[in-house]
Amino acid sequence: MATIKDIADRLGIAVSTVSKGLNGANDISEDLRQLVLDTAVEMGYTTKKMRKVEHRKLCVFIENMDYDTNEQFGYDVILGFKQAAIQEKWDVDVVSITPELQIAERYSTYMLKNGYTGAFLIGIALGDEWMEQIATTTIPTVLFDNHVPKNLNVGYVGTDNYEGIDLAIDYLSDLGHTKIALLNGSDGSLVSEQRLDAYMESMHNHGLPVDENLTAFGFYVADCAKYYVPDFLDRGATAILCSSDLIAQGAIAECQKRGLLVPEDISVIGFDDLPVAARMTPPLTTIRQDRCELGKSAYHTLSCLVRHVSISKTLMRAQLIRRNSTGICTR
Amino acid sequence: MATIKDIADRLGIAVSTVSKGLNGANDISEDLRQLVLDTAVEMGYTTKKMRKVEHRKLCVFIENMDYDTNEQFGYDVILGFKQAAIQEKWDVDVVSITPELQIAERYSTYMLKNGYTGAFLIGIALGDEWMEQIATTTIPTVLFDNHVPKNLNVGYVGTDNYEGIDLAIDYLSDLGHTKIALLNGSDGSLVSEQRLDAYMESMHNHGLPVDENLTAFGFYVADCAKYYVPDFLDRGATAILCSSDLIAQGAIAECQKRGLLVPEDISVIGFDDLPVAARMTPPLTTIRQDRCELGKSAYHTLSCLVRHVSISKTLMRAQLIRRNSTGICTR
Repeated sequence: MATIKDIADRLGIAVSTVSKGLNGANDISEDLRQLVLDTAVEMGYTTKKMRKVEHRKLCVFIENMDYDTNEQFGYDVILGFKQAAIQEKWDVDVVSITPELQIAERYSTYMLKNGYTGAFLIGIALGDEWMEQIATTTIPTVLFDNHVPKNLNVGYVGTDNYEGIDLAIDYLSDLGHTKIALLNGSDGSLVSEQRLDAYMESMHNHGLPVDENLTAFGFYVADCAKYYVPDFLDRGATAILCSSDLIAQGAIAECQKRGLLVPEDISVIGFDDLPVAARMTPPLTTIRQDRCELGKSAYHTLSCLVRHVSISKTLMRAQLIRRNSTGICTR
Repeated sequence: MATIKDIADRLGIAVSTVSKGLNGANDISEDLRQLVLDTAVEMGYTTKKMRKVEHRKLCVFIENMDYDTNEQFGYDVILGFKQAAIQEKWDVDVVSITPELQIAERYSTYMLKNGYTGAFLIGIALGDEWMEQIATTTIPTVLFDNHVPKNLNVGYVGTDNYEGIDLAIDYLSDLGHTKIALLNGSDGSLVSEQRLDAYMESMHNHGLPVDENLTAFGFYVADCAKYYVPDFLDRGATAILCSSDLIAQGAIAECQKRGLLVPEDISVIGFDDLPVAARMTPPLTTIRQDRCELGKSAYHTLSCLVRHVSISKTLMRAQLIRRNSTGICTR
């Protein structure tokens, strides 16, 4: 477990200031106090006061997603959730789940056995056992990027994919691109479906031709680019919009392998704005999802459901972050 | 201004208990304390502590909507907003606006002059002067039932109209109705458009015929029913889904005027679940919008925008409240 000194070192402030922040002293600013608390949560430090939770426990279940370091999508989502939850004196466990676990034990049984009041599920697949159970669950449950109809106990938190995709196509269209390809994530996920819909709608609204051969479902890994990018290039695409930064990284590599320069010959846009996006060569233009705020909003939505306030959806704005992987269309 | 005794009388509890609630004493339950505070806010009572706001001011602007008594839609929306805001030490003003006021003074000027940090706008028309200014405003702003694209400072709060309409058609379809009419609210509002879309989609998904002659845009007043209901009946409608409880009240009166029994001859469903719905003859089946929670969610969304957390949309679940204005289709 981190010590007060670890927190002080990380923030570059005195140990006594950290102590003031943790103990609610009046002579430090509210912003600094919050920063100290947030950092303490991130580093796994807890005060006695924080630990006094009186059996108030929430669970974050995560599947199909990495969250060990802040380079990975899940890290900040979970961090934001915990930061918000701990402020309201909830204890939060994070549990990795597998299809096997879901078959071995029902969702409600697992929740009750472990004394969880509610849960936040990240990365769960549509076909998973628990998804069917969650459709009718009475346990307050928030799904990241997944929606369950007509259940007052279940909420959905995500980024507005329609606006995100539209921002990207707007920008590419301004740069003169008309042959814009979409290299999507996995088929059969709500988010991939929304992004394809959004692409079709936005291309149409911009008066751009829709060529279905310029869209493909891939996977959320860089490696998938090699299966689709060569064909997009052969068909004359001058820009590739990718459903994640990692896919975009693979797409750039694939273009470069064929001797094409990014952005001179082809523009590439990612999705997420993971830390790696800014470090790529060239630095990646991407659609940002604010993962920490997504986590905080998920906590807020869950806390409403716990109080029988039935929020169905909380959607965050997407933002286009313009870097150097996009340029004027020269063809 | 209400006194402590007024609050005690309203809640049927002792003056000393109210006093404990207002002063944060430990020996009453958290639920009771909250009820006392909420009632104090509703009745206009404020403690010294509440009044110590240090210039933290929010504004609720309302147009085209009544809010003077709890029989009216706006009342609970504003109440919920205030209850949530006052807990976090914001002062809240409620200002009725007109198109003239909006022409006389720009939105940003009005906000700055009066020292408001953010605003919640209810019932503002799409064509109003301020709507255009809000599209690019830098002031944290939440719109009820209205959406502005791509502005990080503006959020949208409303009820999930798609799910609400689908719940109603689901129920009518189960009762054997196939000729279901939609008497919508005013044309050109986002909510009316969503409800028409939702109706088309849900009828289609239920395998029911869509007859455009069985849909009409009216107005949000009971009186509008007389212009459309006779035609719906002539065309064989066996159920009428209305975009507000007041429209439904007018629709029932129109049916009864023609000697038809509700629900024996024709089923009618409202929208909102205002207090009057349960008192109608017959008591009205309706799609509930939880107005108090909508107000609270609007405050939460606004407080996020103030902290630069860009929530785009917060949608609440709709609920179908089954009463006696709907029955099995006999034709």
